[in-house]
Amino acid sequence: MVNVAILGFGTVGSGVAEVLTMNQALIDRRTNQQVRLKYILDVRDFPDSPYKDCFVKDFSVIENDPEVDIVVETIGGATVALDFTRRALAAGKSVVSSNKELVATHGYDLLQLAKEKGVSYLFEASVGGGIPVLRPLTNCLAGNEVEQVCGILNGTTNYILTRMIRAGLSFEQALKEAQDNGYAERDPSADIEGHDACRKICILAALSFDEHVYPEQVPTQGITAITLADVDYANSCGYKIKLLGRALRMDEGKICAYVAPHLVNGSDPLAGVEDVFNAIKITGNAVGDAMFYGRGAGKLPTASAVVGDIADIAKDVKTRKCNEWGPGSKELVETPDALAFRWYVRANGTMDAARKACGELTALARGGAPAQEIAFLTEEMTQAQLEVKLAGLDVQSVIRVLA
Amino acid sequence: MVNVAILGFGTVGSGVAEVLTMNQALIDRRTNQQVRLKYILDVRDFPDSPYKDCFVKDFSVIENDPEVDIVVETIGGATVALDFTRRALAAGKSVVSSNKELVATHGYDLLQLAKEKGVSYLFEASVGGGIPVLRPLTNCLAGNEVEQVCGILNGTTNYILTRMIRAGLSFEQALKEAQDNGYAERDPSADIEGHDACRKICILAALSFDEHVYPEQVPTQGITAITLADVDYANSCGYKIKLLGRALRMDEGKICAYVAPHLVNGSDPLAGVEDVFNAIKITGNAVGDAMFYGRGAGKLPTASAVVGDIADIAKDVKTRKCNEWGPGSKELVETPDALAFRWYVRANGTMDAARKACGELTALARGGAPAQEIAFLTEEMTQAQLEVKLAGLDVQSVIRVLA
Repeated sequence: MVNVAILGFGTVGSGVAEVLTMNQALIDRRTNQQVRLKYILDVRDFPDSPYKDCFVKDFSVIENDPEVDIVVETIGGATVALDFTRRALAAGKSVVSSNKELVATHGYDLLQLAKEKGVSYLFEASVGGGIPVLRPLTNCLAGNEVEQVCGILNGTTNYILTRMIRAGLSFEQALKEAQDNGYAERDPSADIEGHDACRKICILAALSFDEHVYPEQVPTQGITAITLADVDYANSCGYKIKLLGRALRMDEGKICAYVAPHLVNGSDPLAGVEDVFNAIKITGNAVGDAMFYGRGAGKLPTASAVVGDIADIAKDVKTRKCNEWGPGSKELVETPDALAFRWYVRANGTMDAARKACGELTALARGGAPAQEIAFLTEEMTQAQLEVKLAGLDVQSVIRVLA
Repeated sequence: MVNVAILGFGTVGSGVAEVLTMNQALIDRRTNQQVRLKYILDVRDFPDSPYKDCFVKDFSVIENDPEVDIVVETIGGATVALDFTRRALAAGKSVVSSNKELVATHGYDLLQLAKEKGVSYLFEASVGGGIPVLRPLTNCLAGNEVEQVCGILNGTTNYILTRMIRAGLSFEQALKEAQDNGYAERDPSADIEGHDACRKICILAALSFDEHVYPEQVPTQGITAITLADVDYANSCGYKIKLLGRALRMDEGKICAYVAPHLVNGSDPLAGVEDVFNAIKITGNAVGDAMFYGRGAGKLPTASAVVGDIADIAKDVKTRKCNEWGPGSKELVETPDALAFRWYVRANGTMDAARKACGELTALARGGAPAQEIAFLTEEMTQAQLEVKLAGLDVQSVIRVLA
């Protein structure tokens, strides 16, 4: 018997309980164990829940019950969740988490604690929701030097951009629709400002390059400045605007990570990832490009990833599933300033002035553009080089083009 | 120290040697072991190879060397490869294979033997080349009842279809080009007749539904009958023709598996998978759809998957990595005859006659069609129902539409 305790009965936590119940027979068969839900910790009461006998309000009940093997942390945030995760690991229990903020900020410490205690700390659900990506990255691709990770890591912003591209909605209209459909929070800033994607690229970078990358080391730009004009111009040259998190291996073992909107070529499989779907493309020195696609959020998809981790631990509770990375450092992480890109630029002025400023460029056109509006793609250059060239122009929008 | 022996120094075998050497330091770090190539078995001589000291011609040298922990079988076929795999497992060595034919025909027996001997038999490279898919399916998605697996499993045929769609080449021209580029064998029948995809869907079905599905149980149709006219008609209604392997969970624990060309809607991510790339979409009752994309063949991508398996075993040689399925049976596997599809039909005749025969249908048009040619999409029906309706028509082409 393997006993599980769930911390937090919100969307993900209740989904985990549902999947454990719904698929109990097959999980037991595949793990060769009886995997059972013993506790659910929540401050609220759920008198009508089918799991009503499992609820407790005091974490120490779980912490002190030697029968609990696996603690599932679906509380979110990095305060209570951090405290309970530490205490669970310290009590010799393995922890499975969907909490990207906690892993991105305290992953190194928590993995060290898990190692010390000989237990597992797994968090497949923290990136890409239900998409299997962290375990394939660390196991199946273990023979690869990872060169780059690039992904559509946030379903809310991808939904908004898809609706702007396909239905011609403005950013504000698309955001409102996402909120009405339950794809965006009342306070959408963590999504639309890119912070959610930032936490996920931190985790992917750490697993790819074996060193912790902290959110504050990752320049992060969201999609609030994207207009329909930009979407139209991108479309006119066969590109789609996507919010990407990227992490790249640089010279001398350094890492570059950032989050920003990009123009993605229509022939890139990332361009075809629509609505709330996520996709993560990993480039290794043997495999080339491999891409993982699916639902990046939602109750059952996220629960699927959590239960996958539970099953992995349950198969053999005594053997620690290794995940480990170094503590990282200030010097290790570079900004994308040194990277050269082609750039999309929208400005007020004349193409002559733009050519004088930027040299060789590709002019773009769209129907219904104001008379003074111009847009173009530059040659490859760094952001600093671009800024020098654009200094005299009335620039409205600048977006990287993904090579 | 973990010692590896490679059987067969062809494309994949030499790729495995190359990746083990190129990425030795990181493989050692990630496995916490020294993973070293000790033998390469090949009947040929390679006096100029950097691995020339590793070559042996007699398998019993490997079989009888207690220092060999992992045998990599990249011979292919099911004769010598079967014998050597059995002997390696019997000698207590774990085996890693890229050999889809062997796994699809003898997987059950070999997994039973591995279990008996307490060793691992892993074959991530046998499906999807470098794409991590078998381990994610069995581990990350362990909490899901798999409902369906559907994939573009053969790069050669996908390349041919892509060239027909994008460059307007005929099947014969595209095949010739694929051969010239090294994407197709001189004898391309295993690819273009669908046998390669058939073996792969057998393996995916076994891992999804826990019972061996044998190639002879899987109705298999290739792409040799696909014409440019069909490609054009598909395009006219927003579809692309793709060769798919599919395995579905049916009522009463039965399995349906088959290989056939399908019209795939442009909005389905499978439609965007081009050239030699493969993609496998897995539908689970918790995760929904998850898709895995990448290079389905090639020296280094396939070697990447093999080395991932080697690393998984090397981390902890004494612990068997479980993969297991039942022996299967005749009664367990159904043909797709009971499944209802919309159908694409091309015929000589009139749309009036077609409507009289088939009832409600969607007429298709293409530029340059001969006067007597018609094409249409039917409503949903089984193959038997379709055949009755089409009996009086001069039918040229019939292709399933993927729902």
